[in-house]
Amino acid sequence: MNDTFNLQRRQVLLGSAGAVASASLFGFSPLSLAAEMPLPDYVNWKHPEALIVHSANTLETRREAIGTSIVTSNEQLFVRNNLPTPDASIVADRDAWAVSFQGVKNPRSMTLGELKSLDVATVASVLQCSGNGRAFFPHGASGTQWSVGAAGCVVWSGVPVGAVVDALGGLDDGAQYMTSTGGEVLPAGLEPKTVVVERSVPLRALDQAILAWELNGEPLPLAHGGPLRLVVPGYYGVNNIKYVKQVAFTVGQTDAKIQASGYRIRPVGQGGAPDQPSMWEMNVKSWITQPLHQAKAGRVRIQGVAFGGARAVKGIEVSLDGGKDWQMARFVGPELGPYAWRPFVLFVELKPGSYSIASRATDAQGAMQPEGRLDNERGYGHNGWRDHAVSLVVV
Amino acid sequence: MNDTFNLQRRQVLLGSAGAVASASLFGFSPLSLAAEMPLPDYVNWKHPEALIVHSANTLETRREAIGTSIVTSNEQLFVRNNLPTPDASIVADRDAWAVSFQGVKNPRSMTLGELKSLDVATVASVLQCSGNGRAFFPHGASGTQWSVGAAGCVVWSGVPVGAVVDALGGLDDGAQYMTSTGGEVLPAGLEPKTVVVERSVPLRALDQAILAWELNGEPLPLAHGGPLRLVVPGYYGVNNIKYVKQVAFTVGQTDAKIQASGYRIRPVGQGGAPDQPSMWEMNVKSWITQPLHQAKAGRVRIQGVAFGGARAVKGIEVSLDGGKDWQMARFVGPELGPYAWRPFVLFVELKPGSYSIASRATDAQGAMQPEGRLDNERGYGHNGWRDHAVSLVVV
Repeated sequence: MNDTFNLQRRQVLLGSAGAVASASLFGFSPLSLAAEMPLPDYVNWKHPEALIVHSANTLETRREAIGTSIVTSNEQLFVRNNLPTPDASIVADRDAWAVSFQGVKNPRSMTLGELKSLDVATVASVLQCSGNGRAFFPHGASGTQWSVGAAGCVVWSGVPVGAVVDALGGLDDGAQYMTSTGGEVLPAGLEPKTVVVERSVPLRALDQAILAWELNGEPLPLAHGGPLRLVVPGYYGVNNIKYVKQVAFTVGQTDAKIQASGYRIRPVGQGGAPDQPSMWEMNVKSWITQPLHQAKAGRVRIQGVAFGGARAVKGIEVSLDGGKDWQMARFVGPELGPYAWRPFVLFVELKPGSYSIASRATDAQGAMQPEGRLDNERGYGHNGWRDHAVSLVVV
Repeated sequence: MNDTFNLQRRQVLLGSAGAVASASLFGFSPLSLAAEMPLPDYVNWKHPEALIVHSANTLETRREAIGTSIVTSNEQLFVRNNLPTPDASIVADRDAWAVSFQGVKNPRSMTLGELKSLDVATVASVLQCSGNGRAFFPHGASGTQWSVGAAGCVVWSGVPVGAVVDALGGLDDGAQYMTSTGGEVLPAGLEPKTVVVERSVPLRALDQAILAWELNGEPLPLAHGGPLRLVVPGYYGVNNIKYVKQVAFTVGQTDAKIQASGYRIRPVGQGGAPDQPSMWEMNVKSWITQPLHQAKAGRVRIQGVAFGGARAVKGIEVSLDGGKDWQMARFVGPELGPYAWRPFVLFVELKPGSYSIASRATDAQGAMQPEGRLDNERGYGHNGWRDHAVSLVVV
């Protein structure tokens, strides 16, 4: 792996603009190291050429690996685990996996086999880490330096959580949140509340939440939360609890650290607290996936992906001059529902020169991607179009 | 691998009814052998637990591996090659792959790189071998004994062939067929016309045909025709030419054997001839995927897939008593366009006993799956619901 390749990787990872902006923030070495890290064992079935291995628990889909055929394959899908992946024995007998339901009239445990006989729903949704785009924050937000590839669009099958609630007699009075707990083995010697993956989302999420056992036509892989994962379409990744072992309807939010102080939008330099906005519904976003660096003069295809987050995406524009002028691009392929992303294309005639290519999506309620970012301590929720633009050299 | 497992495999392969019906036709040994064949090298990335290896060139998706999340993953997708797969060197520089276009005003070769700059379309379609269901023909049709798994629903991206025709000045006068040629290396010592994969489809297929380079979000794998494949949504698999190296618009159909006498609907015992119906547009079809053998008394989820072939599927019914009574089932998930299949489910309360579970789909023009099959020499185009029924024991 030569330096030219690493330089290209940096540009891919950050987008050309980001690469320049952040060159002073950190050297080549962390990314060069990442480039040479092999796939961890538990995801050795993934496609290494499509992924950037940041660490054993964080793998990013390369920007140029995202195509136009809507779905992100399991083999290309990013991975972000808050804790080590459980032992593979938990997927040996998938239907035996048990989930405890609390905060309903008739609380009890149900096996996956039972859940499968209740109801089934299939939904396409964007799975996106809260920190996707963190690499573009100039203050050096701590955490994995994701560019755009901590996101993918996948198809899930599972049982609507609402159907389970109905089967268990309905919600307890006063329930305001759905609080779900992951089945990871907690590291010894630490206070469980500081490490457990337990998240609360508002009850409105019940409209679309499912307990999913299938991903893109496959039994849900262990690395992605199999045998059973809570999927909250339109919500950031952290709310989609892997190896879900409990779903409780609660009056308040959990006091687990990952909820109480973690995944909060807070000013740079401030600590996290429960009164700050939690990373729940995603916002409207898009980015260019090709071309990223160079193109030949003549007719050029510009492509990317756009989604509305918690609402459908409605429109997509592309700028060739860094945001001065915009033109409508075209969505391609079938619409897979409000939570899926849509690939887009624009064909343009380009003369030799330098271009700053940006994309800007609008959701079904008219909300448009902002130009800038909302600076925040942990670098969450970045959907500003300027940082996501790419610098293209046409020769 | 024990006998019980092999017996289950037989039942999966044929459906319970088929297993009984065909028990006298062939012994266990061919299938038992198949069960123990490893994946061939060129598809060693596929998921062996989801596939039945009939031969190096024919791999079937297990009936119960087809889920409800619409897409069939590349790792589970069936394989049927008429010739050995070309050397992997042809996907080393994908954009350099060249296709010759003939029968247009300005015939010439174009590289995949050029094609990508012309236009792009994304389409979900059922890919199905003409011989899917062959195992159910009682006359012992020669060829791979496919049950239901020589089919999958996938998402393609590529350039509309119509856009290429436009770019090359339009069609030659008198063109009636699109005749496309695969880039496989032909076996030495044989008359090329007897082995070349070259198929003609009627010009009406231009409405939806694309030259595809992407499959389910991945660069089109070599095993599935990469770097470039002609995809004719709604048409049987054989018309979807892998490694396509020429697309010609012709007055007549090719005289290649695979077209002239192959893939024709002909009476049992008769030879193939150009005046017999060719395996072009697919017809309406469905099948149950779960449960296949046993279920516990109580609430049972019956699921399957249904598609209209060349038209959208509109309705799906399920019978629990071998076709006496029918009830509407429910499609799940987003509709991915007229050429995709739709997963369906029906939840029923079942008492202990034996059931013959059948499904029957209706397309957008009201055409319904027939009860029987059209017996034909090669066992093509089977969409009769009775042979596809499963015998379920509820305990």
